Amino acid sequence: MTDRTPRPTPQRIAVIGAGAVGSYYGARLAQAGHEVHFVMRRDYDAVASGGLTVRSKDGDFRLEHPLVHRTPEEIGPVDWVLVGLKATAIEDARPLIAPLIGDGTRILLLMNGLGLEEIVGGWFGDERVFGGLAFTCINRGEPGVVHHIDYGAVTIGHHLDDPAALDDALALWADATVEVIRAPSLLLARWRKLLWNVPFNGLAVTAGGVTTDVIMGTPDLRAAAESVMREVVAAGNADLAAHGAEVRLDVDADIAAMLAATEAMEVYRPSTMIDFVEGRALEVEAIFGEPLRRARTLGLVVPYLELLTALMRALDPARTTRATSG
Amino acid sequence: MTDRTPRPTPQRIAVIGAGAVGSYYGARLAQAGHEVHFVMRRDYDAVASGGLTVRSKDGDFRLEHPLVHRTPEEIGPVDWVLVGLKATAIEDARPLIAPLIGDGTRILLLMNGLGLEEIVGGWFGDERVFGGLAFTCINRGEPGVVHHIDYGAVTIGHHLDDPAALDDALALWADATVEVIRAPSLLLARWRKLLWNVPFNGLAVTAGGVTTDVIMGTPDLRAAAESVMREVVAAGNADLAAHGAEVRLDVDADIAAMLAATEAMEVYRPSTMIDFVEGRALEVEAIFGEPLRRARTLGLVVPYLELLTALMRALDPARTTRATSG
Repeated sequence: MTDRTPRPTPQRIAVIGAGAVGSYYGARLAQAGHEVHFVMRRDYDAVASGGLTVRSKDGDFRLEHPLVHRTPEEIGPVDWVLVGLKATAIEDARPLIAPLIGDGTRILLLMNGLGLEEIVGGWFGDERVFGGLAFTCINRGEPGVVHHIDYGAVTIGHHLDDPAALDDALALWADATVEVIRAPSLLLARWRKLLWNVPFNGLAVTAGGVTTDVIMGTPDLRAAAESVMREVVAAGNADLAAHGAEVRLDVDADIAAMLAATEAMEVYRPSTMIDFVEGRALEVEAIFGEPLRRARTLGLVVPYLELLTALMRALDPARTTRATSG
Repeated sequence: MTDRTPRPTPQRIAVIGAGAVGSYYGARLAQAGHEVHFVMRRDYDAVASGGLTVRSKDGDFRLEHPLVHRTPEEIGPVDWVLVGLKATAIEDARPLIAPLIGDGTRILLLMNGLGLEEIVGGWFGDERVFGGLAFTCINRGEPGVVHHIDYGAVTIGHHLDDPAALDDALALWADATVEVIRAPSLLLARWRKLLWNVPFNGLAVTAGGVTTDVIMGTPDLRAAAESVMREVVAAGNADLAAHGAEVRLDVDADIAAMLAATEAMEVYRPSTMIDFVEGRALEVEAIFGEPLRRARTLGLVVPYLELLTALMRALDPARTTRATSG
């Protein structure tokens, strides 16, 4: 500890769902001096013997002897739980998180979609729960290697929008090489991300596994994206109002900003499209199903969201016997 | 000619687009005693040397020496032109039909979709043009063989709904082993078929290449099918009104009938779904694009039709550079 500026108190952290995203952000926190424990399955042997390597556009680095475990019981209560599971695995999260909970434990969900904080808050208490929205392109390489290709910022909010709690969450990242953005309203941040994910993840899959440039360059797909966005804005603003929030999405400005950002990305493969072409489970309920349920509950007519959701469910490689159960 | 009842005067008929549907109905007319000329490409040699075989659920039969040609110029003017092209090939039809046209020549379009009679009527005169809607399951087998698997009825209407002209068209089939149904309003018949084709061909493709039983057995896909149908009824009825027709689709009765018929079909592969899974051009414009254009022109809001059409265009294996042209 030779730094001249005081460092935040090192925190004891557990990473659950240490795939590409969990491993990357956990490694960044370890690099910043925190005590980070990784619960790993597939990569346990490789990481235990050979360390965790991050190849990053911001500079490669390596944890020689990361704290790696096969079960959360080996770790016990921690200050922070980072959950990097896919939203499709939310039901698996409870037994993985439970052994890590102590009096002051907080949980950061680095996951996509709507309604996850409610679920986890219902299990362990709302005040513990934070949401993290990662805008990033990170892939797993060979076991023990993570590739951080592009972007990397995380927007963090508190499930109950408590400013002091949010201060603590942001302080965790003070020395980490990660751009962290404060979300005074987590629900607004979630809906703003859905404003992009619903049209672009949805159309990229339903149009046959295409990249964002195809959607932007095909007039009727781009028009469909805008129509989807208008429905998401309407649903999001009704949901924010129903939750007593004072903030709102701005239908024109936010949609224009998303379209401009998407133009700037040029060729981009939305995460759900990657899952689709690789035959993995799609995050349908968190990105489509829950927004649709809220829109319906609030009495909104959202035909684009209805049809996209139905098609995403049908196209989900993980769908079980729905097709033959009716 | 040993029949006791008078037969209709044998007609000189040319079949253009002699794929499965054209070959089957042309063969039925030849079987009934008409002089039927087939314009063939792929199957020319096989049929010229080995005849045309129909394996039918209503009994197999065989034309030993069918009149087969490589070009319509070899045939010259005829009484009737049967056009069995796919709607995607409508632009190819004009030079194929032109050499067959004489003073009294009539044209029966055995094709799917909306707007084809207008196109062909614009080329050769509206009064000559009839539409035939085949409800059938017919496949090509080896060269020179057609498999008639199921159904087989043809609904026929006149482009201008002239009853006397329609009488002539129906008389052509008097001795043919084909169930022919009179359509006093061809436009109503076209929209009624779209009431099925738009939801079921569209969802069968966009849900990933599924059969009708999957759509019927998946609650949100079935709900989407019904929502699509409501839009098609609205568009069809507005289009009928705009054309001065007095007939209308019945939103509840017609939708209920289509759903009941689809339940009864059990496992069915819509034609566009077969084209999709086999990588062939989809009949997008005739089944989706033209109904959508009419709905927009008539000021209707049809979000399901908008999104389905955009997705079908994107999924069409025949789409050219649309994706990169914007």
